[in-house]
Amino acid sequence: MVDLYPSRVSDKPDIIERKDPVVYSSLSDPGPLSAEQLQSFEENGYLFLEGFFNEEEVARMNKELNRVLAESQDSTSKRVIREPESQEVRSVFEVHKHDDFFQSLSEDPRLVDRLAQLLGSDVYIHQSRINLKSGFVGKEFYWHSDFETWHVEDGMPRMRAISCSITLTENTPYNGPLMLVPGSHKRFVSCVGETPEAHYESSLRKQEYGVPDRESLTELVEEGGIVAPTGPAGSVILFDCNIMHGSNSNISPSPRSNVFFVFNSVENKLVDPFSGQEPRPSYIAARDKQPAKV
Amino acid sequence: MVDLYPSRVSDKPDIIERKDPVVYSSLSDPGPLSAEQLQSFEENGYLFLEGFFNEEEVARMNKELNRVLAESQDSTSKRVIREPESQEVRSVFEVHKHDDFFQSLSEDPRLVDRLAQLLGSDVYIHQSRINLKSGFVGKEFYWHSDFETWHVEDGMPRMRAISCSITLTENTPYNGPLMLVPGSHKRFVSCVGETPEAHYESSLRKQEYGVPDRESLTELVEEGGIVAPTGPAGSVILFDCNIMHGSNSNISPSPRSNVFFVFNSVENKLVDPFSGQEPRPSYIAARDKQPAKV
Repeated sequence: MVDLYPSRVSDKPDIIERKDPVVYSSLSDPGPLSAEQLQSFEENGYLFLEGFFNEEEVARMNKELNRVLAESQDSTSKRVIREPESQEVRSVFEVHKHDDFFQSLSEDPRLVDRLAQLLGSDVYIHQSRINLKSGFVGKEFYWHSDFETWHVEDGMPRMRAISCSITLTENTPYNGPLMLVPGSHKRFVSCVGETPEAHYESSLRKQEYGVPDRESLTELVEEGGIVAPTGPAGSVILFDCNIMHGSNSNISPSPRSNVFFVFNSVENKLVDPFSGQEPRPSYIAARDKQPAKV
Repeated sequence: MVDLYPSRVSDKPDIIERKDPVVYSSLSDPGPLSAEQLQSFEENGYLFLEGFFNEEEVARMNKELNRVLAESQDSTSKRVIREPESQEVRSVFEVHKHDDFFQSLSEDPRLVDRLAQLLGSDVYIHQSRINLKSGFVGKEFYWHSDFETWHVEDGMPRMRAISCSITLTENTPYNGPLMLVPGSHKRFVSCVGETPEAHYESSLRKQEYGVPDRESLTELVEEGGIVAPTGPAGSVILFDCNIMHGSNSNISPSPRSNVFFVFNSVENKLVDPFSGQEPRPSYIAARDKQPAKV
């Protein structure tokens, strides 16, 4: 298969134009998202659905998240990721498979129908995780495009996947919220360097490869600025697989937690990684492609 | 001299009430700050003077800051502080003594008169520095009260000093702006542990001692919240010596730079450090007390 988005193959960074649509359905097709919302997603690469889930639902999700984190504290599973310094559990992967509650949440038609509308096809879960960013010691997460990694390391061929972050705590400007660069999803930053084998085990804790260069980042931010959607727990942020995003540290006392699902189009199934290396394990990038729609 | 604010002497943290006034002049005394501004400072512990300096003045200050940073790049002076990881110059201390431009800025009557009004006496520069927090790699600076350090390590007896930060870049929510906890200046968090000798050389780069405990921080933030004044370059933030403050990391491409003067009352001259140890060098804490007013 031709590599439309080569990265980590040159010693010079490069920015190329996106070769795929952003919204795969027509603005006039009926669906839960309005034409205005589709247009905004097309232009900015993200959509913020403030207060999407109600308080009762949020309370339940928080309870289930805490249960899974507690169950994982002493786990040796690779699905459990810890803070580099404090060893506290930061993420648990593949919760849509290993936990009934999060499986059923990943199949919630309010989400699935919106994602299917944006991606113009049936969808399935490419990756899921729950995240807890501690107060006081939460570290920053440097700028990256998820697609760059999913393409190079997992073999996702095209830009036809969308991340869905359900916030379970209030996002404030002070607790290290997700920052996005609007419009950056329309460009692809080809990163320098090669990927070492099995580097994912450390990269989930601290990134070193697939890091965009400063010049490209500066250019993207000059064009699109930075946004960090803030709002109550239960809000949903949908963002394109290729949008540049990251987060600063969190010294505030408020932890930040969320549920994270990546929906991929069933027409965008994974192929062999474009790095030519072994694919990452399926708890990071699902390789069986059951539609999430039930 | 009796130690009104003991810290680093117990193995248990404690919060005690402030034993000093915040604003030392009467609200009805004439002066450049309005009664409303004095009242706001009294209550919140800070004052944000948006766009205090005009564009031309900001351009000149930026030019002079860059000149001093460039001159300091290869310096081995202890007044020059570097980023822990990148070795880039982050701060240069005592610029009010070693540089004509910054000396004259520290004597600007628009600043000095306001500080003298708040502190109810003549004032002098206790500490000065210029700061550059790089884009992309700027690290967080954990919560602290300056007074805690100045009291324990420098022998500042009372809370009668105010920091003045002149922003030379736009403060946005994304570039690691100064965060303050309103109202926290009225409480004193006594920290645990002892201070090792000459620890200042590393603490200017990365803090380890005089760190407030999480329970106290949570209590202060629950009471007062967090603010991070944002606004154009040339704004001035005045904040009480004892207000709890810190900043998150800065992965944005925008550097954040400022000029920083600490004004102390001439009636609050330094005594022997309350730690019983040697005082820190005078480029960090001035021990000759010439009024800044000329």
